[in-house]
Amino acid sequence: MDLSALWTSAGINIAVCLILFSLYSILRKQPSHVTVYFGRRLSIGTRKINSLCLDRFVPSASWIVKAWKTTEEDILAIGGLDSVVFVRIIIFSLRIFSIATVTCVFIVLPVNYQGKVIGHKEIAYESLEVFTILNVQEGSKWLWTHCLALYIITSSACILLYFEYKSITKMRLAHVTGSPLNPSHFTLVVRAIPWSPEESYSDSVRNFFMKYHESSYLSHQMVYRSGKVQKLMSNAEKMCRILKDASIEQNHKPGLFHCGFCGAHGDSFKILSHESESVRGKSSLIDNGLGESKKKVCAAAFIFFKTRYAAVITSHVLHSSNPMLWVTQLAPEPHDVYWSNLWIPYGQLWIRKMATLLAAIAFMLVFLLPVTVVQGMTHANKLQQTLPFLKGPLEKKFIGQLLTGYLPSVVLIVAFYTVPPIMMLISSLEGSISRSGRKKSACFKILYFTIWNVFVMNVFTGTIIDQFSVFTKFDSVKGLPAQLASAIPAQAKFFMTYVLSSGWASLACELMQLYPLLCNSIRKYIFRMKDWAISTMSFPYHTEIPRLLLFGFIGFTCSILVPLILPFLLVYFTLAYFIYRNQIINVYITKYECGGHFWPLVHNTVIFSLVMMQIIALGVFGLKKSPISSGFTIPLVIFTILFNQYCRQRFHPVFKNHVAEILIDMDREDEKCGRTEEIYQQLHAAYCQSPSTSPDSSTAGSHHHEEDSIQDPENVMPGKEPGQVSPSWSIASTFGAPVPK
Amino acid sequence: MDLSALWTSAGINIAVCLILFSLYSILRKQPSHVTVYFGRRLSIGTRKINSLCLDRFVPSASWIVKAWKTTEEDILAIGGLDSVVFVRIIIFSLRIFSIATVTCVFIVLPVNYQGKVIGHKEIAYESLEVFTILNVQEGSKWLWTHCLALYIITSSACILLYFEYKSITKMRLAHVTGSPLNPSHFTLVVRAIPWSPEESYSDSVRNFFMKYHESSYLSHQMVYRSGKVQKLMSNAEKMCRILKDASIEQNHKPGLFHCGFCGAHGDSFKILSHESESVRGKSSLIDNGLGESKKKVCAAAFIFFKTRYAAVITSHVLHSSNPMLWVTQLAPEPHDVYWSNLWIPYGQLWIRKMATLLAAIAFMLVFLLPVTVVQGMTHANKLQQTLPFLKGPLEKKFIGQLLTGYLPSVVLIVAFYTVPPIMMLISSLEGSISRSGRKKSACFKILYFTIWNVFVMNVFTGTIIDQFSVFTKFDSVKGLPAQLASAIPAQAKFFMTYVLSSGWASLACELMQLYPLLCNSIRKYIFRMKDWAISTMSFPYHTEIPRLLLFGFIGFTCSILVPLILPFLLVYFTLAYFIYRNQIINVYITKYECGGHFWPLVHNTVIFSLVMMQIIALGVFGLKKSPISSGFTIPLVIFTILFNQYCRQRFHPVFKNHVAEILIDMDREDEKCGRTEEIYQQLHAAYCQSPSTSPDSSTAGSHHHEEDSIQDPENVMPGKEPGQVSPSWSIASTFGAPVPK
Repeated sequence: MDLSALWTSAGINIAVCLILFSLYSILRKQPSHVTVYFGRRLSIGTRKINSLCLDRFVPSASWIVKAWKTTEEDILAIGGLDSVVFVRIIIFSLRIFSIATVTCVFIVLPVNYQGKVIGHKEIAYESLEVFTILNVQEGSKWLWTHCLALYIITSSACILLYFEYKSITKMRLAHVTGSPLNPSHFTLVVRAIPWSPEESYSDSVRNFFMKYHESSYLSHQMVYRSGKVQKLMSNAEKMCRILKDASIEQNHKPGLFHCGFCGAHGDSFKILSHESESVRGKSSLIDNGLGESKKKVCAAAFIFFKTRYAAVITSHVLHSSNPMLWVTQLAPEPHDVYWSNLWIPYGQLWIRKMATLLAAIAFMLVFLLPVTVVQGMTHANKLQQTLPFLKGPLEKKFIGQLLTGYLPSVVLIVAFYTVPPIMMLISSLEGSISRSGRKKSACFKILYFTIWNVFVMNVFTGTIIDQFSVFTKFDSVKGLPAQLASAIPAQAKFFMTYVLSSGWASLACELMQLYPLLCNSIRKYIFRMKDWAISTMSFPYHTEIPRLLLFGFIGFTCSILVPLILPFLLVYFTLAYFIYRNQIINVYITKYECGGHFWPLVHNTVIFSLVMMQIIALGVFGLKKSPISSGFTIPLVIFTILFNQYCRQRFHPVFKNHVAEILIDMDREDEKCGRTEEIYQQLHAAYCQSPSTSPDSSTAGSHHHEEDSIQDPENVMPGKEPGQVSPSWSIASTFGAPVPK
Repeated sequence: MDLSALWTSAGINIAVCLILFSLYSILRKQPSHVTVYFGRRLSIGTRKINSLCLDRFVPSASWIVKAWKTTEEDILAIGGLDSVVFVRIIIFSLRIFSIATVTCVFIVLPVNYQGKVIGHKEIAYESLEVFTILNVQEGSKWLWTHCLALYIITSSACILLYFEYKSITKMRLAHVTGSPLNPSHFTLVVRAIPWSPEESYSDSVRNFFMKYHESSYLSHQMVYRSGKVQKLMSNAEKMCRILKDASIEQNHKPGLFHCGFCGAHGDSFKILSHESESVRGKSSLIDNGLGESKKKVCAAAFIFFKTRYAAVITSHVLHSSNPMLWVTQLAPEPHDVYWSNLWIPYGQLWIRKMATLLAAIAFMLVFLLPVTVVQGMTHANKLQQTLPFLKGPLEKKFIGQLLTGYLPSVVLIVAFYTVPPIMMLISSLEGSISRSGRKKSACFKILYFTIWNVFVMNVFTGTIIDQFSVFTKFDSVKGLPAQLASAIPAQAKFFMTYVLSSGWASLACELMQLYPLLCNSIRKYIFRMKDWAISTMSFPYHTEIPRLLLFGFIGFTCSILVPLILPFLLVYFTLAYFIYRNQIINVYITKYECGGHFWPLVHNTVIFSLVMMQIIALGVFGLKKSPISSGFTIPLVIFTILFNQYCRQRFHPVFKNHVAEILIDMDREDEKCGRTEEIYQQLHAAYCQSPSTSPDSSTAGSHHHEEDSIQDPENVMPGKEPGQVSPSWSIASTFGAPVPK
């Protein structure tokens, strides 16, 4: 690949981006697409629809200005702590890659270009390799510049990371103190309640906690497993609601579909749903007995405590001499509970964890296939040899460049669209009892998956195709850095086009919200439905964080080898900054929070990237026979690892545990204000699972229930979560969770 | 190596063992060696010295009978839980290797011997390889026997492991409930107390715990750092005591040395020591102020709680929003405290941990040198080539056999004698605040070290000498099992001689207590001193557990490859059973306990050994082209890992945490009995560091202090711990720790 091919690729991408951005700025002003582009603001009712005017059809950059002007406090209020953490990732990347770009473009790039290994051509046809470390001679006395760049990047990354970690820790603590009525602080989940023939689970729980934690135990609430009939009934109810909405519309405006079944304002369904509720009311009476219905009660319960501190300390305790009984953990927030996983017997969890781990690894390995195919595409001449019928098209220059420069990344992106739903499914099966825990677990899996498949396997399958003997040459572990050092510059063009296509284009797609737009358009213009179940989604952290981190990883590892990639990355992060802020403000809602738990993952990944960068640099200095630079790099590796260890000691415990000091102070504050009774009353209602157990919170409960057990929204669409919003907010606002304004 | 060489080696070892056992049975009856062989019983005063009679000079097996007859309850009473765990390791090994021996000798060995790869010679000159898997043809239809043996060994090992873990967990719980007055249950160590210019550390602690844990906080006690002067004074005091003992003796009986200095019954020293105490009394007065002496107070303290449960829950809590402040952990038992590590600032700990880890790894790698030399020795012909002057002696058959069959192991053993003290030193620097924690850490390090150096490096350096090309042949990870499978049988003779020499002979040495015997003899017969500071040692678990586990590891990995090794191992474990029981009963005392913490380590190592065995078997089946056997082995690996995961879930938490249920019941029992006041009074005295802080417990305190800070006994002698005994026991008995009878 030469410079001109790079420009072709960059040109295509810039054009695509510009078109999509303009299109977005027009589409967002159309009232018909307001549900797609202003989902969050619609859900809280602050979006007024503009009247028809010319302005609606002129592209504008107002959204960029708005995204720029929004402060961090606003983001915190709108999207919660996780959004802020997400924005901080982008800001951190912007800062560190600005420094890296300046350092590498002005110090490293000239040294690479002045090297004499590869002959220079006319600048436009200059091979990309001329700008990489491949062009520097062995034993060059200019390699100290690479070592200096390494020092600058590592030290500024560490300084930035330290301050980010510090400020996010502070935010997390403020997040805890800022939600004084959060019911999850008072609540534990206890699982694996031992079964006894004499007493019911509920009695067991009461007796156990009254015996050992009498002073702090308040009350408890069993978890019920909804049976098949209940599921069917909920399904019917849901269908009824949807059809009712539709039928109301039908009565006003004749459309394509007219459902005679729900003619009379859906009254028949109303009767049905009332009936079903009364049936459930009866079944709850039976539940209180010890008869057949005992099967429905799970060996899990929510335990409410009188103080936050009591809940936290009880969660850490080993309750029984059989550690597989009476297992406690802090409860997730009410709308974060993943009910169907609460039904899983605790004894199954360890097997599930092992099985899902194996499944994730197996999936990673199977995925090698498309990656290998993609790698074949970047080597046009090799492709010609294996598939001779492609020889004709490939000889045409433009198609050749397109095929080698652009298509491989597109194939990868398409293949990657299958990853998030599969990983999310695996994470669901893993057994996390909170939706945020599931998302975090999926985030981990997708991150490992992405780095493994995009980076490691591309580097190595690339070199296998290039030179089959590479494994036999460097077969020991010692040879690995050298192998990486020679393989990465050779793959420079792949990484560049990956940043261009996957990076830039995926941001434009994110902005355009292609899939919801398509669905919305089909509904509007083909089925002619109006406000068909507003599917506002929560932010897909589990796909977007790994993507940002992957680009960071590519940036660090390529920085001194292929400095030309850095400006493209910088553009990527700048675009990301505006687009994601815009999306947080307008599109996504916050249904549940991880409380900043993503940051330790980000921190570790950046440290890993830095260490990889240094190890690869060691390989480079080894290959280029520069022992002095190698000698200076080794202390850097040790320093980076020590820095990570320090941060793990200094900040990480706050993310794992609640701070006793703060909780005790909050408890005392409650007592002083006389809020305790109020809190106790709300606790039970907050964790209501279904109407049958507590009629007073039926609306909220049934919605949670449905969301999780029947229509699992995160499995419906890759990486996005549609879901009902409004009812959840009533509880959230009661308990002081950040409410979008 | 052929069978005759094996017999030579075995013969030498059997002879050495028999001679040493006979010698032991005579020496133990001599009154002059009673301090060496009956240290424990002397220390509790139950050993009466026999009068002179002929019986004293006749070898007998009475000690074996006694060791056999002692029940597990006796062992528990004598040596505490750790001794029982140690004996259970031996019993487990005996059981599993009985099963393995029967299986492999009757099923696998005939199959190996009937193979036709290596030509048969006369039975006496039969090469050892004939009995290994090397003799089985490729694609042999008899390989199912090896697979069957694998199944029998794995399943019986898992069943035995499960029941052992279960019973040891039960014992550990009984150990907790059985010591109702244990002060460590009520006590926390708090470190990293923040320094403030307004108030002293002691006030900070009191204010902090009174503020946040008012209901459960009882009192606290600061940790003081003894200065140089104090150290010198303690040294002087100690010398004085020793010389006084000596001088008393001198006055009764004229000897070689007469120290005029301590003539008048050491009165001058008595005065000096009284003086020193009065000086310290004054300094304690100054300590209470805030003047210069503040430097001596460390940022660490013991916090006493009113109940056990309060102490346990407070230990888990994250106290401050800066996790590097107010760090709490449960206190070790009073005589288990490693005072000088309490002085280390908490902020240093993470660096120390990293540094000691690096140091341990570096030591492991440096140690490769002697191992490579040893490996060279087992290849006589290669040795001849490199060191031509050895050619003459090597051609003499007996010397050749000795050199190749016996010497390598002796060299290894000698080199290994340097390992325990070095690892102990590294573990001390690591910063564990309990002596048992330090020992456990050293045990881990020595275990990794032993397995790495003896097994892995022997196998691979052996094959490197044999065939330099092996690494290039099997260079991927996939090839590793095959490589192991071919390397281990080739090293059969090394492992056999290692079991014979290192195993059997080291047991005999352990029984003979060569080093203390030598010291004692020199004192008695050359310096003519009597009862010169009885140096009773605590059991060197950190050297003996890794040794047992290493032999278990060798046994498992060699079982189906080299079944001939199993009978030798069985003899080893039988001898170990009698000898270690004898030593526990007679020689070693229990100064502190790990509370069965060694068992999880043992369990994990056995699981690791089993998995290694299976992976090596996979390699064998691959080499021998038996896909069916391979297919049957893979589920076995998965089953073993799942079993381990289950045990980790089911039993391990009990070893990490105290069970709340039990502690609360104990607290209530105390209240019922009205013991609480009594316990509170004893708490402060139990953790007294030096006489200057609490005069009423000066004796006990000063002894602990000396033991740790000045004469660190575990560094004095490789793997053994001399120390003063009697004063410690007074506290132990007060607090109900198992006291030897």
